[in-house]
Amino acid sequence: MAYFPEVSKIVYEGPDSKNPLAFRHYNADEVVEGKTMREHFRFAAAYWHTMRGMGGDPFGPGCAIRPWEDGSDSVAMALTRVKVFFEFMEKLGTPYYCFHDRDVAPEGSTLAESNANLDQVVKALKGEQERTGIKLLWGTANLFSNKRFVHGAATSPNADVFAYSAAQVKKAMEVTLELGGENYVFWGGREGYMSLYNTDLKREVDHLAKFFHLAVDYKKKIGFTGTFLIEPKPKEPTTHQYDFDSANSIAFLKSNGLGNEFKLNIETNHATLAGHTMMHELAYCAMHGMLGSIDANRGDLLLGWDTDQFPTDLYLTAQTMLVVLAQGGIGAGGFNFDAKVRRESFDPIDLFHAHVGAMDAFAQGLKIAAAIRKDGLLTDMIKQRYASWDTGIGAQIEAGQVGFAELEQYMLAKGEITPNSSGRLEMIENIINRYIR
Amino acid sequence: MAYFPEVSKIVYEGPDSKNPLAFRHYNADEVVEGKTMREHFRFAAAYWHTMRGMGGDPFGPGCAIRPWEDGSDSVAMALTRVKVFFEFMEKLGTPYYCFHDRDVAPEGSTLAESNANLDQVVKALKGEQERTGIKLLWGTANLFSNKRFVHGAATSPNADVFAYSAAQVKKAMEVTLELGGENYVFWGGREGYMSLYNTDLKREVDHLAKFFHLAVDYKKKIGFTGTFLIEPKPKEPTTHQYDFDSANSIAFLKSNGLGNEFKLNIETNHATLAGHTMMHELAYCAMHGMLGSIDANRGDLLLGWDTDQFPTDLYLTAQTMLVVLAQGGIGAGGFNFDAKVRRESFDPIDLFHAHVGAMDAFAQGLKIAAAIRKDGLLTDMIKQRYASWDTGIGAQIEAGQVGFAELEQYMLAKGEITPNSSGRLEMIENIINRYIR
Amino acid sequence: MAYFPEVSKIVYEGPDSKNPLAFRHYNADEVVEGKTMREHFRFAAAYWHTMRGMGGDPFGPGCAIRPWEDGSDSVAMALTRVKVFFEFMEKLGTPYYCFHDRDVAPEGSTLAESNANLDQVVKALKGEQERTGIKLLWGTANLFSNKRFVHGAATSPNADVFAYSAAQVKKAMEVTLELGGENYVFWGGREGYMSLYNTDLKREVDHLAKFFHLAVDYKKKIGFTGTFLIEPKPKEPTTHQYDFDSANSIAFLKSNGLGNEFKLNIETNHATLAGHTMMHELAYCAMHGMLGSIDANRGDLLLGWDTDQFPTDLYLTAQTMLVVLAQGGIGAGGFNFDAKVRRESFDPIDLFHAHVGAMDAFAQGLKIAAAIRKDGLLTDMIKQRYASWDTGIGAQIEAGQVGFAELEQYMLAKGEITPNSSGRLEMIENIINRYIR
Amino acid sequence: MAYFPEVSKIVYEGPDSKNPLAFRHYNADEVVEGKTMREHFRFAAAYWHTMRGMGGDPFGPGCAIRPWEDGSDSVAMALTRVKVFFEFMEKLGTPYYCFHDRDVAPEGSTLAESNANLDQVVKALKGEQERTGIKLLWGTANLFSNKRFVHGAATSPNADVFAYSAAQVKKAMEVTLELGGENYVFWGGREGYMSLYNTDLKREVDHLAKFFHLAVDYKKKIGFTGTFLIEPKPKEPTTHQYDFDSANSIAFLKSNGLGNEFKLNIETNHATLAGHTMMHELAYCAMHGMLGSIDANRGDLLLGWDTDQFPTDLYLTAQTMLVVLAQGGIGAGGFNFDAKVRRESFDPIDLFHAHVGAMDAFAQGLKIAAAIRKDGLLTDMIKQRYASWDTGIGAQIEAGQVGFAELEQYMLAKGEITPNSSGRLEMIENIINRYIR
Repeated sequence: MAYFPEVSKIVYEGPDSKNPLAFRHYNADEVVEGKTMREHFRFAAAYWHTMRGMGGDPFGPGCAIRPWEDGSDSVAMALTRVKVFFEFMEKLGTPYYCFHDRDVAPEGSTLAESNANLDQVVKALKGEQERTGIKLLWGTANLFSNKRFVHGAATSPNADVFAYSAAQVKKAMEVTLELGGENYVFWGGREGYMSLYNTDLKREVDHLAKFFHLAVDYKKKIGFTGTFLIEPKPKEPTTHQYDFDSANSIAFLKSNGLGNEFKLNIETNHATLAGHTMMHELAYCAMHGMLGSIDANRGDLLLGWDTDQFPTDLYLTAQTMLVVLAQGGIGAGGFNFDAKVRRESFDPIDLFHAHVGAMDAFAQGLKIAAAIRKDGLLTDMIKQRYASWDTGIGAQIEAGQVGFAELEQYMLAKGEITPNSSGRLEMIENIINRYIR
Repeated sequence: MAYFPEVSKIVYEGPDSKNPLAFRHYNADEVVEGKTMREHFRFAAAYWHTMRGMGGDPFGPGCAIRPWEDGSDSVAMALTRVKVFFEFMEKLGTPYYCFHDRDVAPEGSTLAESNANLDQVVKALKGEQERTGIKLLWGTANLFSNKRFVHGAATSPNADVFAYSAAQVKKAMEVTLELGGENYVFWGGREGYMSLYNTDLKREVDHLAKFFHLAVDYKKKIGFTGTFLIEPKPKEPTTHQYDFDSANSIAFLKSNGLGNEFKLNIETNHATLAGHTMMHELAYCAMHGMLGSIDANRGDLLLGWDTDQFPTDLYLTAQTMLVVLAQGGIGAGGFNFDAKVRRESFDPIDLFHAHVGAMDAFAQGLKIAAAIRKDGLLTDMIKQRYASWDTGIGAQIEAGQVGFAELEQYMLAKGEITPNSSGRLEMIENIINRYIR
Repeated sequence: MAYFPEVSKIVYEGPDSKNPLAFRHYNADEVVEGKTMREHFRFAAAYWHTMRGMGGDPFGPGCAIRPWEDGSDSVAMALTRVKVFFEFMEKLGTPYYCFHDRDVAPEGSTLAESNANLDQVVKALKGEQERTGIKLLWGTANLFSNKRFVHGAATSPNADVFAYSAAQVKKAMEVTLELGGENYVFWGGREGYMSLYNTDLKREVDHLAKFFHLAVDYKKKIGFTGTFLIEPKPKEPTTHQYDFDSANSIAFLKSNGLGNEFKLNIETNHATLAGHTMMHELAYCAMHGMLGSIDANRGDLLLGWDTDQFPTDLYLTAQTMLVVLAQGGIGAGGFNFDAKVRRESFDPIDLFHAHVGAMDAFAQGLKIAAAIRKDGLLTDMIKQRYASWDTGIGAQIEAGQVGFAELEQYMLAKGEITPNSSGRLEMIENIINRYIR
Repeated sequence: MAYFPEVSKIVYEGPDSKNPLAFRHYNADEVVEGKTMREHFRFAAAYWHTMRGMGGDPFGPGCAIRPWEDGSDSVAMALTRVKVFFEFMEKLGTPYYCFHDRDVAPEGSTLAESNANLDQVVKALKGEQERTGIKLLWGTANLFSNKRFVHGAATSPNADVFAYSAAQVKKAMEVTLELGGENYVFWGGREGYMSLYNTDLKREVDHLAKFFHLAVDYKKKIGFTGTFLIEPKPKEPTTHQYDFDSANSIAFLKSNGLGNEFKLNIETNHATLAGHTMMHELAYCAMHGMLGSIDANRGDLLLGWDTDQFPTDLYLTAQTMLVVLAQGGIGAGGFNFDAKVRRESFDPIDLFHAHVGAMDAFAQGLKIAAAIRKDGLLTDMIKQRYASWDTGIGAQIEAGQVGFAELEQYMLAKGEITPNSSGRLEMIENIINRYIR
């Protein structure tokens, strides 16, 4: 049985194709800088948006047409969705997927029942993985939807909620391991505060650190060797999320002895909500050796909430790939489409349009970035721009051979600096456009 | 001779005074929570805004009426300004001031000449300090106005600029020491980037760390025992400033072995430009033991640039004082009015209105915060809210006695959590208003 | 039977009361500027938030505790809610309420069935109005939640949706008339666009104008003499809402011959999302004689979505009342609490805390504004500031006695202007604080 | 003598050129949709940025290298700049320019002297126009830099300032006429307010309307037949500018009987500061028949001030051209580069890089837009999307044949609407990318 009878397998047809359900740039087997596109991206579909997103928003309930849904939240329905999802991915050609525990299986009336529900679905997921060769990029636990988490999970003022969260993450880590997941992600849904008036900031943040230490302990205990990833977000649903941005997350990790145990999962829309470009967040993480994976989506810079649109802007994808290529690839991470079709795009086929366009935009971004790198113009300009640091006083400073006193002597003798050079950004922006078209 | 003949000494006249040039709340000798207001605040006037701010903006030059200005940037004019400034502070009653090297003395044609100019003015400042008892809260170096710093100072691609900056900071530290300054501030003016296309992010940030290490070395060498303070700002003039916010600054300091050598100087307008409340930035620093001093001003949350308005919002000042009192006071720091009168407020007397109102707003904020603390309502509510952490499973978690496995056992046995309590924020906001009036 | 057994009637206890469930400032019978507070505010409770808001957000379903809810969306449940709502308002002391058609009664499977459901509930509402004396400030139709309105209502690309909307508004107007409603509100929920790529902007806006003309026709036909109000909002749920702000709405009305048929209902959170202060939107409408009513709430200026918090900021309420008093009162409009308790404030009693605090904040704002007006300081300063327009060249300009040529002659003769005066804003801000405390 | 000896005439070399000082897309004589590119764009260089922008910002003075500047603000220097500017435009190939009165000639000590200075420079401009064939797109008056305008020009509380402004605009209109300018622009620099506390909003706005009426009178008197253009901007330098956005400007014009006398000059950076896309502002004006001209630049959506960057984003230029082509071209307006090189790009040659890249980006945008239009995909989708309005009930509504009563009957009979179609925005975004590359 086919859940998407109107769609055959999406294939590569080349840049001139006018078939909206074909790839124009994403050719999984095409080699760029020594790796296939499949290896570069490790694209993943997101279970929550693709299977569970029904288009609800604060002003109306969902209106997506999903013929396979029977209106229930049963295990049987969950098992059907597994089949739908894998058919979707097979036709699309994404080699990976990601999920939250509560997306794939319904919550029961007790923790034990929830775990049992999850086990049934995990068995089906495993079966489909084996059948198709599609793999799990990462798993995670939903610690924000249930009313239990209304004040947070690990940072709840209610210690029982911490305990519940620990139990839930324990199980989610176990099933991630069971499914061969290559990473495990922590997004702190409601870890944050609405107001400092009723919040013990330090105690909450200490509890969060404690939680992560326990997670690391348990990871080692069960032999999960995947990467732990924290996903920063500045605000929404809380007024202030504890993992505000990558700098904040790194400050937290380093302050709590966790700097070597985690990397970051950077999301475009979260970057811009925090006031940063995606390129900044990526480069900042890469500088710290902590860029682990990417949630590939896009916000609307004129809107102040998380729109989670599919990424189609070629400047964005080219910039992303410039950073990723510069750090030698995304490693054990991948590009997960944490993105949703608009409420107005309610047909099943819109899911395909959205993913096809995003994969193509990244493939094109990869080609642009690789061409820029091959020509070496930017790297040459940067090398030249910092040349004064490679010899003379610059080299001495970097080598730690001079202090304030010596530098003062140097400058008193010289009187004024060697003149600066123009930053030439306008020319550089023109050069970038040369590669866009 | 009096430069402000229209103003006598500002005095405390009590809450019912209708004299706009009297304090209604700031009574320097009044004791609150065991300290005088003078000791609580350690208010400082900012030389750059008060003496050098002429009201220029991107759409027109300055238009402030400053009868003592002769239109020159000479040392003689600088010496006159010293007298004007101290008359202003004496009349106002601020016990401290702050300055940049290039505010107080003109830049010469060589570094040596600039240093000589500075020495002359410092001598005058010292004389006025001795005459009046007014002290230096902190000194700093202007590493952003001269074209030399067009691409940054310590993070310039030009190594000579690093050297020049080192020499300039060395001198600024020496004169701060000479003047008995209690802190030294680093605001990274143009330390940041316009675009990552032409920036070697890691190299620039490494240079910044190197610069701070050299500053620490020199501090020890000359026996300066004041606090080193970094002042975060997210953007402007650069697109992305390296000291984006307190979390970013702390990530930087901890990543570079500088965590014990610096505290932060938090500015309200910079906090909100970064997407944070001032209360957040203060509480976040306090949590890390790194709240060193405050640049007391205010932005306009509907405008996207640094308006540096004088703080008059009583919610802001009360929230500020709640955090400061909770951490036991501002310590060796103070409240520096890094604020400017609007371009439209061009009379000398507007400088008095601005400072009087801000000092009063803080005095009122202190009284509000102290009253809230005395009644203990908020602290009681917070204590109660986190009570589950003081015994039982909460206490066991905090004590490190349980891991994920034990917590799962606990929750499997319990089935569901002890219900949460309402956060009661609406009631709390009403209670806060009880103290405003 | 009492649905809020824990709350008795809220009473006025004066400023020193520490009872969080008493008014400290709102004394309905207290006369300010010749009218009672009851008459000044005409406070209204909003059915949708108070009765139907369950605390759902994009990251989790509702978690409000509402013991009277049976989980159904039946007419019987709707009739129960009517009783709950009027008990709430009786205890609170709000003299008015507002509703959407689909809040109070469930949507049926056909339009006829929906109308019949509504009729049953309207009968109950009428009964409760008669029993309690509580009146309807305004009614409106929900043209945004049902999937039918996914692309808009009057601006839908689907003409049937326009027809359906017309039928629904017709009915909503009829029941508003039946219930003695004093106004009828149009909030264009999904009237706007997600992207101009697939939008015929002119055709959609023309349809909207057509819709309003038909509404005006029908209003006259049935003899509804209340005011038609448009409620501007800039964005959310659409990317761009057609009634962006008051200027946009006025441009639309005037361009389409509707300027005399509508006034505006101004909401604080919508004002700030559009980049304006609430005071601006109010004053702008008042200048055009089009300030009809107020949706009294508050956003968080650091968050980019509609948080609809209850208003408690005394600067906001004082500024609001300054404009309202200056235009001679809110007229046939009122102050509707289009505001919701936070998701974390899930107890029924939080509804009381929220409304009590907001009513008190407005009462306090009224007293502050009245005191400022009584003293006349601001009006005197403004009168003085514009004095040059009352005589001489200013009066000639206003009287239309001079043109560019005469003005050039005047200025050539004079050479330069009579000097400007300082705007004195810092002093004025201090004066405002004098009234806050 | 050549002021830019390093640059020869910029020529078109085709898309594969790697010469950064050649056009890759802008071929002035190339015909697109029946007009040459020269005619489509009518590109203009902006005197203020290109000749007078020295790179000053709030944190430092200008640092641009302009070898022809002698440091004076004399008429002689002004006359030299005229030559420099025309050499720049000749080499660049822009057929138009724009200026403010005070950019091109120094302000004198009296109005008469200022006028005399201006006359001298205008004579030189006229000579250069005749020599080169370069024309004046529009002139304008600077009513914001001089301290006289500190509280506004036509909206100043000081009637003398209104008079001065009138005299200055009179002269600027006269010289615009003298130079054959095709439009005259009003940008309300400081027309707005800092705070409503000290502002008589209605009186100021009435004065603004009066001012425009006098300008229209004078325009007719002297026979200036060019278009009057208002340039909206939401904020900066004031807190709230009176010409906030296009909707606000249109509300103002229509409310004051000026709707037929003015069109709008839309600037990209102003659009986004107001919370709109450029495409929105353009389409909104076009819908009202009031899109007169374009200030082609770009802001940084993560920064909150007017960065006036040169436009290089191909999505932006393609969207702009889609709207311009749809309205049949820019008419008597043009594309003026109200844009500045970054402070860091201080070499004269950076001026060329900036303009070349922007002209190329628009040429490419034109080609993209024309290709999209030629294929007709978007127009077909829109036509299909609104098809229900072309017949049946939709046509009846548009024709005014049905009212609320008939529409209710129609819908009661039908029960529910004909289902909506998906908006297909994800597919459309992918189609757009097909044209980018």
